[in-house]
Amino acid sequence: MAHIELGVDERRFPGITGPMRFRPETAKPLNDLAEVLLRGPHPLTPGERELIAAYVSGGNECRFCRDSHSAFATAQLDGGADVVDRVVRGDPATAPISTKLRALLRIADAVRRDGKAVTAALVDAARAEGATDLEIHDTVLIAAAFCMYNRYVDGLGTLAPDDPEAYAQSARRIVAVGYADPG
Amino acid sequence: MAHIELGVDERRFPGITGPMRFRPETAKPLNDLAEVLLRGPHPLTPGERELIAAYVSGGNECRFCRDSHSAFATAQLDGGADVVDRVVRGDPATAPISTKLRALLRIADAVRRDGKAVTAALVDAARAEGATDLEIHDTVLIAAAFCMYNRYVDGLGTLAPDDPEAYAQSARRIVAVGYADPG
Repeated sequence: MAHIELGVDERRFPGITGPMRFRPETAKPLNDLAEVLLRGPHPLTPGERELIAAYVSGGNECRFCRDSHSAFATAQLDGGADVVDRVVRGDPATAPISTKLRALLRIADAVRRDGKAVTAALVDAARAEGATDLEIHDTVLIAAAFCMYNRYVDGLGTLAPDDPEAYAQSARRIVAVGYADPG
Repeated sequence: MAHIELGVDERRFPGITGPMRFRPETAKPLNDLAEVLLRGPHPLTPGERELIAAYVSGGNECRFCRDSHSAFATAQLDGGADVVDRVVRGDPATAPISTKLRALLRIADAVRRDGKAVTAALVDAARAEGATDLEIHDTVLIAAAFCMYNRYVDGLGTLAPDDPEAYAQSARRIVAVGYADPG
């Protein structure tokens, strides 16, 4: 049970969805941010951006966000579940992803640990693989934003479903309607 | 110099203001979130909420955010700079603040370290001092959000001004017009 009375059945509204029902005033900018970062027009595909989100959430050991965004990445990424598993539960260094995405994931992991861990060398390495300033900016902000979402979800002690189908169902909704309309 | 070309004079647009000019699409929800959390209608005063933001930013050693939100708290909190300094650079346990705010700061510090560090005992202690579910929710989300803002600012290697007047000037703007209109 969550640390506060969310006013919803947590089995129906697990993870971040319960607190978002509890406080729609903050849910709005939180969803708007996710929509721009993960689904807005961008040189990185939605699948690649969801993979960054899943990877950061895995690093922070936030089960609800890790399994949600792994499902969202799986639904939208070439290579699907195998690639996502190898990045999120394995090692991006050996996963079959582009060298650019691999360099961006290294930046994301530094941001996750501490913003000050992002070095000029990490940024130069991403640029050498073709990453633009926009891609570097958004990688930093996606990683930073999931340090927020992860802490929001876990700091309130919300429920993470065990059933993979719960995450697959959310993935279908996100792909169809996105974050801005939580339905 | 920041890790990416922000397209602004960083002395005029230090810290988060440079990346917000670079990417207005993400600046909008970031500012909307800060406005609701720190200045929207609430049982905690804007000064108290800015103090939570400054305290978390201090814990994350993000100088720009720490000094900005310390200035914003100083401008709006009973006790001003002395109280802010004792919380942000000293120890909330001995600072002259309410027992409720002290209990909420303990929750904020747990969120900052790891969402899963928020225990039922910490939440019960805040509730025993009169904290409501809304105050606990917003404390968790303010702390989580500053784990994002801090990493965004430091992950892009932005400039933190040395001159205290820069932060005092921002404080006058925030008090007058808030976050939603970055001017």
